[in-house]
Amino acid sequence: MNNFIFHNPTKLIMGHGMIAKLSTEIPVDKKIMITFGGGSVKKNGVYDQVKEALKAHNTIEFWGIEPNPSIETLRKAIALGKEEKVDFLLAVGGGSVIDGTKLISAGLLYEGDAWDLVLKGNETHTIPLATVLTLPATGSEMNSGAVISRHEAKEKYPFYSNFPVFSILDPEVTFSLPPHQIACGIADTFVHVLEQYLTKANESRVMDRWAEGLLQTLVEIAPKIRENQHDYNLMADFMMTATMALNGFIAMGVSQDWATHMIGHELTALHGLTHGHTLAIVLQGTMSVLRKEKEAKILQMGERVFGITSGTNNKRIDETIRKTEEFFRSLGLTTRLSEEGIGMETIDEIERRFNERGVHFGEDGLVDGKVAKEILLQVL
Amino acid sequence: MNNFIFHNPTKLIMGHGMIAKLSTEIPVDKKIMITFGGGSVKKNGVYDQVKEALKAHNTIEFWGIEPNPSIETLRKAIALGKEEKVDFLLAVGGGSVIDGTKLISAGLLYEGDAWDLVLKGNETHTIPLATVLTLPATGSEMNSGAVISRHEAKEKYPFYSNFPVFSILDPEVTFSLPPHQIACGIADTFVHVLEQYLTKANESRVMDRWAEGLLQTLVEIAPKIRENQHDYNLMADFMMTATMALNGFIAMGVSQDWATHMIGHELTALHGLTHGHTLAIVLQGTMSVLRKEKEAKILQMGERVFGITSGTNNKRIDETIRKTEEFFRSLGLTTRLSEEGIGMETIDEIERRFNERGVHFGEDGLVDGKVAKEILLQVL
Repeated sequence: MNNFIFHNPTKLIMGHGMIAKLSTEIPVDKKIMITFGGGSVKKNGVYDQVKEALKAHNTIEFWGIEPNPSIETLRKAIALGKEEKVDFLLAVGGGSVIDGTKLISAGLLYEGDAWDLVLKGNETHTIPLATVLTLPATGSEMNSGAVISRHEAKEKYPFYSNFPVFSILDPEVTFSLPPHQIACGIADTFVHVLEQYLTKANESRVMDRWAEGLLQTLVEIAPKIRENQHDYNLMADFMMTATMALNGFIAMGVSQDWATHMIGHELTALHGLTHGHTLAIVLQGTMSVLRKEKEAKILQMGERVFGITSGTNNKRIDETIRKTEEFFRSLGLTTRLSEEGIGMETIDEIERRFNERGVHFGEDGLVDGKVAKEILLQVL
Repeated sequence: MNNFIFHNPTKLIMGHGMIAKLSTEIPVDKKIMITFGGGSVKKNGVYDQVKEALKAHNTIEFWGIEPNPSIETLRKAIALGKEEKVDFLLAVGGGSVIDGTKLISAGLLYEGDAWDLVLKGNETHTIPLATVLTLPATGSEMNSGAVISRHEAKEKYPFYSNFPVFSILDPEVTFSLPPHQIACGIADTFVHVLEQYLTKANESRVMDRWAEGLLQTLVEIAPKIRENQHDYNLMADFMMTATMALNGFIAMGVSQDWATHMIGHELTALHGLTHGHTLAIVLQGTMSVLRKEKEAKILQMGERVFGITSGTNNKRIDETIRKTEEFFRSLGLTTRLSEEGIGMETIDEIERRFNERGVHFGEDGLVDGKVAKEILLQVL
C-alpha cells in the first residue's frame, strides 16, 4: 500500500424526494446562482422541484452549460455571477453542468480570465457549490475534479477545485434519460474504476475488492437497465456505482492510470464524441498495448469480474479484453474508431499533441505520443 | 435502497511515517490535550514520534484512559482540560482512548456532569479532536460514535458526537500488538460488517459487494497475520479493513442490525470480556435465532464469502454459521459463554436489563429481553 491522504467532505443526500432538502441545506442569506444545461430538467420535473424547494431563497439562473463545458460559456456565467454578487452555486445537471460550475466557483473570486485557472490546473479559492445530479456518469458530484474545454482550439483539460458541499441524488431523475446517455454513463463508470484498478497488483486487498464490486455491479445491472430503466432500486444501484467510482473511495493507497481518459479527451475535443463512448473505444487498446505491465491485474479482473479461470495467461488476458469489449457493445456502443469515421489523421494529431506537450501518462508514465498512437492503432 | 444522508468529513492520513504530519495538521495556536491509554505507546515508539512532531505546539498530557473507557476516568480528563483551557484534543491509542476522548470533547463545553451527555446519547457541541490510531478494531478513528462505561453500575452505552478532524494510521504501530488484541480487532471488524450486512436482501448491490469485500479480506488475511504480523502490506490491509468497516461507507441506504453489539456490551459490562471477543461469542446465536428473518442474506454470505453453494437452504445456513464460528476459533478466540465461565445468571440478568429498558434491537426491532436470552442460550 502506498501512503495516502484521503478527505472527501461532500455530504451525499440520496433517495426519492430528497431534492426538497435544498430548502434547509442552503442558508437563506445566500445569493444563489443555479446553473443548468439545455433544458431537460424542465421536462422531467427536476426544475419544478428545485424551484419549489428554494422559493424562500434569493436565486438567479444561468442556462446553457453544454456537454463538455466550454470556457466560452463559463466566462458568461462568471460575468453574471460577479455582477449579481452571487455567493453560492447550485449546479442542476449532469457532469458537464457540475464541472462547469466548479470553474465558475473559482472564477468568481479570480480577477483575470478563468482560462488561466484551467491552464494552472487547480484553484482552491472558491465559493461554495452544491449539486442536484441528473445523470450518473462522471462522479463530479462527489469529487473536486472537472474537465473544461476550449472550443475555439479544440482543447480539453482537467481542472481541480472544490468538493460540492452537498449533492442530492434522486434515482427517479434517471428514468427519463436517453438510453445512449445511460450507456455512456455506464461505460464512463466502468472505466473510472479501471483507471484506479487495472494498474499494479497487491497494493491493497480492500481497494481491489471494492473496485471489483463496482465492476461486478455494472456487469450485473447493465442488461437489466436496458430492459427497464424505471426500476428504482436498479437505477439507485447505477447512481451509487457512478458516484462511488470516482469519489476517492477506491483510490486509497493504490496506483492510478488515467491514460485512457487523456486519450479519450482528445477524441472528444477533436470529434465531439461523448466522453464515456471514447473510453469504450480506447480502453481495449490500452489493455492490449500494456498487457505485460498490467498482466497480474488483468488476470485478476478476468477471474473475479468475468469468471475467466482457465487457459494460459495470454489466453486469459485475450479473453478478458474480449469480454470487456463485448460488455461495451452490449450497451449499444461502438468500440472501434473506424465505426465513428475516425482515422489516421486523428491518430497522428493526438500523437503530435502528446509529443508537443511532453506528456507521460499512466501509472508508470509509459504513455507518451508514440504509445498513445499504438493504443489507437489497436482500436482503429 | 432506503433514502440516506452520508457525510464523513474525517481526513484519513495513512502510511509509514505519517505521524510526523501532526506538526502541520494542528494549528500552532491551539492548546492541545493529548490523551493516552496505559503506556504501550512509550514502548513502540509512537509516543516519541508524537512528541517530536508536536515539539513546537503547546501540549498537555492525560494518561490512563482504560479499555472500555469509564465516566469515572473521563471526568478527571474533562476537569483537567477545563482548567488548562484546552481547545484541541489528540487521542493517541485504540478505540477506547478515542471513544473516551469524544466524550471529553463534548464534556469540555458542558457545564454539568458528562454522564448526562451519555444518557442523552449524543452531543454535537464539541471541541475539535484528532487521532493517532494504535489498534485497528473499533473504527472510532473515522466515525462519530463512542461507547462509554460507568464501572460503578456495570453499565455501557453508545454515545455520538463528532468525527475526528483527521486520523493518522501508520500500519507499523500494529507490529507490536499482543496477538489476542489483534484477534479481537479482527473479530470486531468482522461483526461490524455483519451488523450492516446480515439484514435484508436486495437493498443495495454496491453495499453488499463492499461488505463482502471486507469479509473476504478478513478471511484471507487472518491466518497470514497469525503467521507474520510484521508484514507491512498485510497489516495495512487489516488497518484499512477495520476503518472501512465502520465509517459509514458500507451503510449507505441499507438496514442495520446491532443487536449482537448491544448484547456483547452487556457481557463486557458484567464480566470485563474484551469487546471483539464478546461479539465472536454472541454472533452465532443471533444468526441461529434469526435464521429465518436473515435467510437470504446468510445464504448470500455463505456463497460469496465462504463459497457454500450446495445443499438445501437450511443446510447452507447451518454451514455458514459453522464456518463463521470456525473463523473466530481460528483467531484463537473462544466462542461459547461456558468457556469464559459465564452461565445462566448472566443470561437472566441481560434479559432483565433489556426488559427493564424496554429495548427492541435489530433491523426489525425483534431483539428484546426474551430473544436476547434465546440468543445467549444458543451460545452457552
